[in-house]
Amino acid sequence: MKQHTRSKPDIDSLAEGVFSGDRVAMGQAITLIESNLESDQQPATKLVAKVLPKSGNALRIGITGVPGVGKSTFIETFGKYLVNQGKKLAVLTIDPSSPLTKGSILGDKTRMEELSKHPSAFVRPSSSGQSTGGVAHKTREAIFLCEAAGYNVIIVETIGVGQSEIAVSNMVDFFLLLMLTGAGDELQGMKKGIMEIADAIVITKADGNNLKNAVEAQSMYQQALHLFPASESGWHPTVLTSSSLTGNGIEEIWKAITKHYDLVKSSGYLLKNRSKQNVAWFHDRFMQLLNKDLKQFKEIENAQKKLEIEVSNSTISSESAARQLLDAYHKALRTMKS
Amino acid sequence: MKQHTRSKPDIDSLAEGVFSGDRVAMGQAITLIESNLESDQQPATKLVAKVLPKSGNALRIGITGVPGVGKSTFIETFGKYLVNQGKKLAVLTIDPSSPLTKGSILGDKTRMEELSKHPSAFVRPSSSGQSTGGVAHKTREAIFLCEAAGYNVIIVETIGVGQSEIAVSNMVDFFLLLMLTGAGDELQGMKKGIMEIADAIVITKADGNNLKNAVEAQSMYQQALHLFPASESGWHPTVLTSSSLTGNGIEEIWKAITKHYDLVKSSGYLLKNRSKQNVAWFHDRFMQLLNKDLKQFKEIENAQKKLEIEVSNSTISSESAARQLLDAYHKALRTMKS
Repeated sequence: MKQHTRSKPDIDSLAEGVFSGDRVAMGQAITLIESNLESDQQPATKLVAKVLPKSGNALRIGITGVPGVGKSTFIETFGKYLVNQGKKLAVLTIDPSSPLTKGSILGDKTRMEELSKHPSAFVRPSSSGQSTGGVAHKTREAIFLCEAAGYNVIIVETIGVGQSEIAVSNMVDFFLLLMLTGAGDELQGMKKGIMEIADAIVITKADGNNLKNAVEAQSMYQQALHLFPASESGWHPTVLTSSSLTGNGIEEIWKAITKHYDLVKSSGYLLKNRSKQNVAWFHDRFMQLLNKDLKQFKEIENAQKKLEIEVSNSTISSESAARQLLDAYHKALRTMKS
Repeated sequence: MKQHTRSKPDIDSLAEGVFSGDRVAMGQAITLIESNLESDQQPATKLVAKVLPKSGNALRIGITGVPGVGKSTFIETFGKYLVNQGKKLAVLTIDPSSPLTKGSILGDKTRMEELSKHPSAFVRPSSSGQSTGGVAHKTREAIFLCEAAGYNVIIVETIGVGQSEIAVSNMVDFFLLLMLTGAGDELQGMKKGIMEIADAIVITKADGNNLKNAVEAQSMYQQALHLFPASESGWHPTVLTSSSLTGNGIEEIWKAITKHYDLVKSSGYLLKNRSKQNVAWFHDRFMQLLNKDLKQFKEIENAQKKLEIEVSNSTISSESAARQLLDAYHKALRTMKS
């Protein structure tokens, strides 16, 4: 087996570096958290345990939208507005790294160029080549880390299409959906159900010749939102417009987000929701680890593939297949342990 | 342990009874499938294996809507229309049986009174007192059974609020959402995201003084639906009105459903989607069985509860909790097997 040559990070000093807001330490810490190496898991867990008590003090915002909607330029403009307001802003990207989305990752270095250089902003480019499944959990732990470093607004941005929106909505306090004026082909890649869980929809590129259309779209979407079920938080989702060119609408968006934040903070919904999110992530992560555990047995992986084909063809029922797979798992564990 | 006194059903003759459409046999067969007794699992699996090759030939329709929307009267009216068209119709109910929904179950015996008596209809009242989790799987296997008995339209109705809509949408070919004219308090119980996955929305009670409002609501919802992402099937969701009093709209609803069916059948989406559903149910059921497997160890159940509280309070991370629980599971299995 190939030896990993990177020197073992000293977790205590890494944590101290994070607490002092040292960017190099933060970068190393996130790299450690994101690592898939088995030898990194224990120090990563130790690091997260250290930062966890200092986390929780930021407003967490999720931002999603189909490619072409202008996510990067929106975050650049919105982010600069926030840091100019005295906020400390961290921007994290969640990216399931399917081969299909590799294109958008390439642009990462030049994305949010000005924001990246601002002393009050920490922009973490997406790490490519991650295995799927655990990616969202790692992003979630990176949130805690940024909070422990003193960032008080965290933006989690999705890259890719229809893979991670739900995951992001489950790790933030406010979920923002960016949309274009039209409502046709550009919606193709959008996952069903996303509109209904958005706390706000922002129609982007509301400038020049597009302004009139954007205002019309705003009104249409606002009407549609009235038809949706109410949010458990008591918040009524709102539709706004923005221009990354003129900066119009940016202030209103921040006002809506802080209004929501004040509401859920005073009602107790914020903490209740975060607790619920924590438990849901625990269950989800446990299931992921179990699945990974199964995959260590070649015979189970083969059995699963075979069963999937049979179930897919209706040759056997999903119930019967599930029972066979559980039996195979028990048998494999028994054989291994004896 | 208390002995179960019901005589063991002979699976071969039970299956023969189902194939011949015998209602008593069908009732017994569904009861067997729904049973939570460990001793019934093996014969139930055997029965499903027998009916599976004869299943798949029905149009599967899911119907949902908040309490008060008129689900039962709609299905009574719609169902009578179908059997009068020469269809053989089975109506199944999925009910997670939370104490909150017990009220609606009480009405079961008198619901769909005329339809229940029709020789071409099979109405299966919801079985109460089921444990959650597995309920949807059992309903799904009941679909196969009804198909093997020659029913060519299956309606799966949800009871209860916000518990089983997604599960139902994942076991049918067409998902119908019933709604009332207004859009306010009556949406409270509706789960977010449901509107976006509906293949059709039907505004109920479109008669008398309510007719005008219903037609207005229809137009509003139709506009809203245009703003949604397109369906993968290529189908454009439609909004219709219906009156269970006058029967108005019932024919149009059936036309829309058959139009969708023809589309997805000829495009190949129907079978592709069913295969996908099969595999998803397999994975889901496996995870349920694993969870049940964990629960057999008292110490794991206790560990899980303790970890949930700690995770909920952010005392430990979900990652760390998940790893601890997996370790506990391995240890328990090791101890048991040795």
